[in-house]
Amino acid sequence: MTVANRLMFEKPLGMRDTLPFFYNQKRKARQALSQTIESWGYQFLDTPMLEYLDTVGEASAIDETQLFKLLDQQGHTLVLRPDLTAPIARVAASQLKEQGYPVRLSYDGPVFRAQQIEGGKPAQFEQVGVEYIGENSIYADAEVIALQVESLKASGLEQFQLTVGHIGYVKGLLTEIFGEDHDTAEMFLRYLFRKNYVGFRKALQEVELSDRDKKRLTQLLSLRGEEDVLSQAEDITTNGACHQAIGELKQLRDLLEIYGVSHYVSFDLNLISHMNYYTGILFEGYAPHLGSLLCNGGRYDQLLPSFQSNASATGFAIRLDRLVEALSQEEDTDEHVLVLYNRDTFQQGLQKAQSARAKGQHVVLQHKEQLEESSQMEARYTWVYDVTTGGGE
Amino acid sequence: MTVANRLMFEKPLGMRDTLPFFYNQKRKARQALSQTIESWGYQFLDTPMLEYLDTVGEASAIDETQLFKLLDQQGHTLVLRPDLTAPIARVAASQLKEQGYPVRLSYDGPVFRAQQIEGGKPAQFEQVGVEYIGENSIYADAEVIALQVESLKASGLEQFQLTVGHIGYVKGLLTEIFGEDHDTAEMFLRYLFRKNYVGFRKALQEVELSDRDKKRLTQLLSLRGEEDVLSQAEDITTNGACHQAIGELKQLRDLLEIYGVSHYVSFDLNLISHMNYYTGILFEGYAPHLGSLLCNGGRYDQLLPSFQSNASATGFAIRLDRLVEALSQEEDTDEHVLVLYNRDTFQQGLQKAQSARAKGQHVVLQHKEQLEESSQMEARYTWVYDVTTGGGE
Repeated sequence: MTVANRLMFEKPLGMRDTLPFFYNQKRKARQALSQTIESWGYQFLDTPMLEYLDTVGEASAIDETQLFKLLDQQGHTLVLRPDLTAPIARVAASQLKEQGYPVRLSYDGPVFRAQQIEGGKPAQFEQVGVEYIGENSIYADAEVIALQVESLKASGLEQFQLTVGHIGYVKGLLTEIFGEDHDTAEMFLRYLFRKNYVGFRKALQEVELSDRDKKRLTQLLSLRGEEDVLSQAEDITTNGACHQAIGELKQLRDLLEIYGVSHYVSFDLNLISHMNYYTGILFEGYAPHLGSLLCNGGRYDQLLPSFQSNASATGFAIRLDRLVEALSQEEDTDEHVLVLYNRDTFQQGLQKAQSARAKGQHVVLQHKEQLEESSQMEARYTWVYDVTTGGGE
Repeated sequence: MTVANRLMFEKPLGMRDTLPFFYNQKRKARQALSQTIESWGYQFLDTPMLEYLDTVGEASAIDETQLFKLLDQQGHTLVLRPDLTAPIARVAASQLKEQGYPVRLSYDGPVFRAQQIEGGKPAQFEQVGVEYIGENSIYADAEVIALQVESLKASGLEQFQLTVGHIGYVKGLLTEIFGEDHDTAEMFLRYLFRKNYVGFRKALQEVELSDRDKKRLTQLLSLRGEEDVLSQAEDITTNGACHQAIGELKQLRDLLEIYGVSHYVSFDLNLISHMNYYTGILFEGYAPHLGSLLCNGGRYDQLLPSFQSNASATGFAIRLDRLVEALSQEEDTDEHVLVLYNRDTFQQGLQKAQSARAKGQHVVLQHKEQLEESSQMEARYTWVYDVTTGGGE
């Protein structure tokens, strides 16, 4: 057993170790999220890390270039799960179907996204999330958003903001303006998806449209903020799909008001989190000083049908690594104790250790002469008891 | 998004879903193990699911035919980690090296072992374990075995047995008898590893040996039981390596006596858990009615050197799925509440739900008219409150 020297301590691109301090911070945040999610009646489950490409891999919202693929011994192509929404849809549409809808499910586990180049992005990260399956009502959307807020609060996060949009509004307006010219509509949709507003404005100058439509598309970019943007959004179109979307957002706003979470929520009518996955209300969450998305979610009514189930669904996913980054790091409050013994005093050392463990302390029981001379072990403990000298320190 | 019909709900060979009931049982057992392990001063950490084949893959004790392999975008061969011991050795020999030895580390996570055929064996399962790195003393072996016992007890497991052996004794005796004939020695070692005692006896009849040596190898098979087998084992050889091994086991027995765990431990001097991984004391754990190994561990002094660190080590790993199988399944004691509301009574429903959640109950707040007619939702709850009729049930 010798290991190639060049790579000996290296990990694959985007793979990271979780050392004890960060491990404990993650565990604390995970527990707070789980407790809140369970108190809302969601049931946790888990699915395997490997799925068939042809089933869950294809159904997933994640681009194929980001999938880790491998062949099994039977020659099937497998993928490391890129999310948990598609596997949970598989379970909900099969093993849990007999329960009847709606079902409220939740999960917590690693997902995988292959990275092309070293960009500092993790290729494996942990998501905590919920799926509310089998109910197409604004009450379900509101519950998921309110639960997202309450979970984040329970984890100790003080400052964060959810931005809520509606795919029906954007698509309705683009269809109204571009009609059968789907390519141009999709081009504008893609600029919004990439949050490339400069590109959007530039394309708008180059495309042949009435002044009114150019003005409306420019107005679309500014439909962001508090609830008054909902009325502004209504004013620029008489399109039925757009008005239905705004009606849903207004109903959502009223419910979030009753939930007492509306001050965490603002609206953004050009929010497109995915090119073709969401089908209604969708949202993204941010925390200050965090350069990237903390969480997101929304309604996805087309996933379950791909598992032969006519069920609509909504849900959210929180990036646990980013949540921990956004949380102020707490001191480790556990008491760490080191008990040193030697050949003649093992029994005394053990008694000392057992009584401290019974009090909830974390106690290392260590043969003193086995310590390396260079060991900095003693410096790492709150309390050191050396029973070889008959006393403590 | 449509999914290949034939396989729609299928999972890859050996992959399993963990549905809510089993998820909760696993979580409870995992928490009990972790708390005990932490109270003994072990630090939890995690490593990525993917590692390089050339580093951790090669260093692992798992046979290459059981590795899931894939190519990354740069053309390197990656493996899904088959255990956590090799990755933790990597971390201990690099990022944690500055702490000085010994270090006590622990882990909890999935590992992967490819299955060739459908034999009902999982290809992914969860291990909870510890690694005590940088101390070659029987005190370290005893601590790991005692902690194994205490962890299992804390999980609620009442009946189990650890069997302890010493690779030095078996290899010492085989070397004494076969000398330079390594192939024959390895053949007998392999029969022991496979627990194929019929094959061992048959081979013994066919091999050319003195009557005394044949008798000693037959005696080896019966060196199993309480501590008196240690003296019997001493009596059949004067070999120095064998006597050193027995001396270590006697010291271990004395320490386990002081730990108060010796009634969980018996000895088996022909125990070979792995052909070439362990280097000293090793052990396996069983529970009644469980057809397979519950946990195992031992001293492995050759792993860290493959990461350029001259550190000896010992540790154990518990199969969490099998532990849960061995535990008597407890009833779910959480209170599950369903609150039904309608359009006019959302606020009342929410108040009812919030006050029940504050009491620690798991509460689903459900729009009554969104329930499927066939839904058996109400049957699944301890309490149902229907605020649309102004009352409970």
